[in-house]
Amino acid sequence: MDNNKTISANELSNNNPSYLETIFSIANGHFGVRASNPVEKSVTGGTIVNGFYETSAITYGEKAYGYAENNQTIVKLPDFRTITICDDSKNEFSKSELKDESLNMDNGVVKSVYKLSNKDNQSIELTLEIALQQLNNQVVGLRYEIKSIDYVGKITVVKHLDIVNESEVTDDPRKSRTVNTLNYDKAQLSDSCEKLKVTTEVSKLFLNLALCAKGSLEQSYDLGKSDSITLDYVGFVSDIGEDLNLEDTPSFDDIVKESSEFWQRFWKSSEVKISGDDKLNQAIHYNLFQLTSSTGRDGRTNIPAKGLSGTGYEGHYFWDTEMYMSPFFAYTNPKIAQELIKYRHSILDASKKRARQLGVKEGALYAWRTINGEEASAYYPAGTAQYHIDADISYAINRYYDVTGDSDFIEKYGLEVIIETARFWKNFGSYSNVAGEKKFCFFDVTGPDEYTAIVNNNYYTNRMAKFNLEFAVKLIDEFPVKSEDFGVTKKERDEFAKIASDIYLPYDKKLGINMQDDSAFEKPIWPFADTPKENYPLLLHYHPLAIYRYQVNKQADTLLADFLFDDISKNQLTREYDYYEKITTHDSSLSRSIFSALAARIGLKKKAYSYFTDTVRTDLTDLQGNTDDGLHVANLGGSWLTVVAGFGGIQVKDDTLEITNNLPDEWNELSVRIMFRGRLLEITYSAKETNVKVIEGKPLEININGAKQLVK
Amino acid sequence: MDNNKTISANELSNNNPSYLETIFSIANGHFGVRASNPVEKSVTGGTIVNGFYETSAITYGEKAYGYAENNQTIVKLPDFRTITICDDSKNEFSKSELKDESLNMDNGVVKSVYKLSNKDNQSIELTLEIALQQLNNQVVGLRYEIKSIDYVGKITVVKHLDIVNESEVTDDPRKSRTVNTLNYDKAQLSDSCEKLKVTTEVSKLFLNLALCAKGSLEQSYDLGKSDSITLDYVGFVSDIGEDLNLEDTPSFDDIVKESSEFWQRFWKSSEVKISGDDKLNQAIHYNLFQLTSSTGRDGRTNIPAKGLSGTGYEGHYFWDTEMYMSPFFAYTNPKIAQELIKYRHSILDASKKRARQLGVKEGALYAWRTINGEEASAYYPAGTAQYHIDADISYAINRYYDVTGDSDFIEKYGLEVIIETARFWKNFGSYSNVAGEKKFCFFDVTGPDEYTAIVNNNYYTNRMAKFNLEFAVKLIDEFPVKSEDFGVTKKERDEFAKIASDIYLPYDKKLGINMQDDSAFEKPIWPFADTPKENYPLLLHYHPLAIYRYQVNKQADTLLADFLFDDISKNQLTREYDYYEKITTHDSSLSRSIFSALAARIGLKKKAYSYFTDTVRTDLTDLQGNTDDGLHVANLGGSWLTVVAGFGGIQVKDDTLEITNNLPDEWNELSVRIMFRGRLLEITYSAKETNVKVIEGKPLEININGAKQLVK
Repeated sequence: MDNNKTISANELSNNNPSYLETIFSIANGHFGVRASNPVEKSVTGGTIVNGFYETSAITYGEKAYGYAENNQTIVKLPDFRTITICDDSKNEFSKSELKDESLNMDNGVVKSVYKLSNKDNQSIELTLEIALQQLNNQVVGLRYEIKSIDYVGKITVVKHLDIVNESEVTDDPRKSRTVNTLNYDKAQLSDSCEKLKVTTEVSKLFLNLALCAKGSLEQSYDLGKSDSITLDYVGFVSDIGEDLNLEDTPSFDDIVKESSEFWQRFWKSSEVKISGDDKLNQAIHYNLFQLTSSTGRDGRTNIPAKGLSGTGYEGHYFWDTEMYMSPFFAYTNPKIAQELIKYRHSILDASKKRARQLGVKEGALYAWRTINGEEASAYYPAGTAQYHIDADISYAINRYYDVTGDSDFIEKYGLEVIIETARFWKNFGSYSNVAGEKKFCFFDVTGPDEYTAIVNNNYYTNRMAKFNLEFAVKLIDEFPVKSEDFGVTKKERDEFAKIASDIYLPYDKKLGINMQDDSAFEKPIWPFADTPKENYPLLLHYHPLAIYRYQVNKQADTLLADFLFDDISKNQLTREYDYYEKITTHDSSLSRSIFSALAARIGLKKKAYSYFTDTVRTDLTDLQGNTDDGLHVANLGGSWLTVVAGFGGIQVKDDTLEITNNLPDEWNELSVRIMFRGRLLEITYSAKETNVKVIEGKPLEININGAKQLVK
Repeated sequence: MDNNKTISANELSNNNPSYLETIFSIANGHFGVRASNPVEKSVTGGTIVNGFYETSAITYGEKAYGYAENNQTIVKLPDFRTITICDDSKNEFSKSELKDESLNMDNGVVKSVYKLSNKDNQSIELTLEIALQQLNNQVVGLRYEIKSIDYVGKITVVKHLDIVNESEVTDDPRKSRTVNTLNYDKAQLSDSCEKLKVTTEVSKLFLNLALCAKGSLEQSYDLGKSDSITLDYVGFVSDIGEDLNLEDTPSFDDIVKESSEFWQRFWKSSEVKISGDDKLNQAIHYNLFQLTSSTGRDGRTNIPAKGLSGTGYEGHYFWDTEMYMSPFFAYTNPKIAQELIKYRHSILDASKKRARQLGVKEGALYAWRTINGEEASAYYPAGTAQYHIDADISYAINRYYDVTGDSDFIEKYGLEVIIETARFWKNFGSYSNVAGEKKFCFFDVTGPDEYTAIVNNNYYTNRMAKFNLEFAVKLIDEFPVKSEDFGVTKKERDEFAKIASDIYLPYDKKLGINMQDDSAFEKPIWPFADTPKENYPLLLHYHPLAIYRYQVNKQADTLLADFLFDDISKNQLTREYDYYEKITTHDSSLSRSIFSALAARIGLKKKAYSYFTDTVRTDLTDLQGNTDDGLHVANLGGSWLTVVAGFGGIQVKDDTLEITNNLPDEWNELSVRIMFRGRLLEITYSAKETNVKVIEGKPLEININGAKQLVK
């Protein structure tokens, strides 16, 4: 076993139970199980099902027309790990101590070892192994092994699907709200099986859970001094709105086998090897493992902001998917990238409605945060005003197309999204006079940087809209018949082209850099010298108006556009990097990965390495102090992006794969596996050379460090 | 009796009971009584006490640092008008028909005549007269007269302080929220008197109400065919936090006498006579009567947005006071203008705290809407971001000083407010490069026009801040010793002066007009042609982002600055008026009065007259359809402003009263009474001449139609 593919609790500095619940949570895209202590009935533990949410009316201090109407809150379901073990006096072994906990990323098994004691301080050892099926992803397997430490005698074991108590109410916008409108309907199918139907009162969703024991759900044993009692259980989570078929219950070993095979295949196409820093390599493995676990793979769900490891941000899907996470899938597992695009296609109607609510006559505006497609952001200046999400989705579709060349899929699912988002930009923007020229402008928008809101001509937004419109023209020309089905005329196509070329891109001549927005450089720079360290993140310590009136960035904004398009000179990029870095707090976990990748591209090797090492272990070190709410899943994807697009310098330009070796001096060697146009490639970087090997598929001409080369 | 000083229900087109409750409500600055039907237990009727509010936590969909924490909601208290009249079978006369209702503005009495019927359809006539004491303003007098129509027999009359049911919950931000946290403690003092202590559970305020009958609170009479039974009651409303002294209960006739004397004196100093249009004259009388009734006169309260005639806008005080209502008092009843300033002085500490919450190191920021001084606006883009309220208050203090010359008061109450608001501007703004020059700028602000939010260098805000700082310098020079007490140094004084002269005032060279804000003219103009009439007011039919991204104004913004400062050429003013008028919807009731006054100043006589006639009867015609929630009190003041500052062309410049005759062609004559520097003046305008008479006080040199003149 690769020792970079395990994580143990004793390697972590934080041993807070709810933190460990997150770190050792496992998931399969459909549902996740937090690694709760099984005898302590944790209120933060439980099962999280992707896309299973309850709605409630959003309450506004002052409501206005077109505001998001409803919260969509992912709910916590009964905890499959919970178990009750009693001694011969029917007293529970309720005191517990975690002795060891580990995740094996080669087979997807989490193993937890506890010392449990009864009220007489007699102890037993409980080992819990848990694994999820990944392909038939409704199944969780649990194996409990009980050994005596100093207790011998009768043991009674009871295990049911217990209803979870929701944790308390909070004001922190990053956490989730409490849901108290779940209805439970329990059916005892046999001694060994029970089923629980869970219905959400308001959103009217339901699903079924089941728990089956190998023996009985309530049973007794005699525990001798050197006995070891093994108890296997299988849990089930139906799809939303479906019943369960419990006829073929796999064994625990079957489940581990399936899981193991899945992860073997996964590493084959996704392996990243860093020689020279095992800790970093372990972290990147962990990130890819959890990112993949977090990701919906059914075309109806997406990637919640905390994956399936916690209910933070209410289980909503954001632009994080397209900008930080889907690149990994496009390059390693295009099938999953497809499903993520299908999800966006599935909520196109809701997005068209949203555009109408925003007073835009044609096109679609994707919700800033949502599960069901409806806007759920209750603060429009840093929500709905981030119109750029439309172009972010378009960008991801283009990336998928670039990497896979899969035109069938694009025609079927991509084209309509691209046309409707292009229509949005056309109708949302307007021509205005800029220094004597008629330019196409966008007013009152918010870019990625949420410390600057409601501005005109945000560079990122404008640049992305330009791309979105250009891409629409490209696809319309490529799929003229299908485009006509969507009502596209020659006139509309030409309007898209004209607007794309007329879009205003703010540039400061004196500084020689792209300008975040029309008034960005007029504002004073945030008084960093007067800001104590404990006042970060600023959003928790300053009124939005106090932040907005200064030049201060939460995250990469203009620089993100530079990263995505690679369309400015290295000199300009260096100037921009220098300017924006000075005003960026990185209060968003989406920031450092981009700064790192760009630094690598510029050749600022030390900086690139330092930003990367700061964040690749964000969750493993609890860098932001809130990993207990769930993993920072976008950052998991961001770390891959840094390695592959930053240090590995991989991008697609004009249908050609380009590779630039930006290897940090600290590493002996880096090797990454990616898929490109049906091939599996392994790219190995060292200080001296850049090697590309075609593992599967035909030879290919690519551009390595500026020179075309045929690789086999 | 002047027939322009009465209003009868039969002159009104709307006879909806809750509308009439507002129109015939009466108040005395301390409390108001809505004109409910006394036998119908109206849920919208009741007593409203200025400044008596309950608090509750504001719920946000997504909360952020520094947001307003609590609602402050003015509460409705028991209705003094309610009475129960039963026939000899103890059945109530519960069916009622309003026969006639009228307000006499010469004595302040409202008289309502009802036909009441029992279940056998036998009827009596009930006449209710109500009046409030105005100086000792804790007292309300009620006289009920009962006559037979076709019922004769025993009559039982019961009258108590009945607890009001709150009306239902609403989402309309203009209405008030429901309060269910009032505690009532009733004491029966005697057969004829009862007392009710009302406590608010959360804000911990209390007051006492009392009701005393001339005879007993429950009594029986024999009603013969031509009998007339007269029943007098006196109600009391203590000050907030005070008990009541019920020893000297005035008679109903005493109360009417006191009220009558008050209103006689009032008209003597405030009379406006329009010859040529009785309806308009009636309306302006009504407006001044209700404005004065609505206004707190104790230095601890102010003017609620709906006066004391309804609970709309939760009884909050806004900038409306300083910009639309206090001018009337400064020019006719300076004592009341003083009290309004004292109120602002009393909440200076809360305002300093608020400035800190907004990240501004020094100075005070007044709450956009408040009763107790704390910010209660739950939507900062059209609330807290309207920083201009600081300068609005300063402007009102300066106006008071200009009109009265009362330097003692200014030193005692005005100076500190002016210094602290000037400090706010100094610390809130910053120097920025504007076309090569270092200018002092304000970023991310909202001007008066709430259809344009979070912009840079709003002209109105900048112009007002400049004034605020200049005024601070003037007062510091005038009151150097007292200023030192407030920590003002020579350095600070000079900084104020320097910043005032450096403040950037956006101006569009091509159009030759002041520019609403830095990006105002870049945005497309609102698609007025595509906007159906029923989509106004826009705020109820479009998302804020949909409104903000267009050039469209809810109300006068840049033009309001022009009106206040009269500092641009007539040509420029004409251009500006023309430009902004085309993009203004007048969706705010604060808009038309300023457009009218400016049109009068420019000489656009038809337009001035038309805007005036559109709004002077706003409530009497239920123009906005929501007078049932309460009077549009700012518009009451605005109509006076139009007459006196617009048609009458009255302003103070360089310590001199200036008068310009802008009489509309439709009027034969206009005469207004105002106070100026201790004198009572009567100014009479006709097409041919402008006559000024000193009614009380010494001769005075003033500027009439451009020529200095000594008037006696």
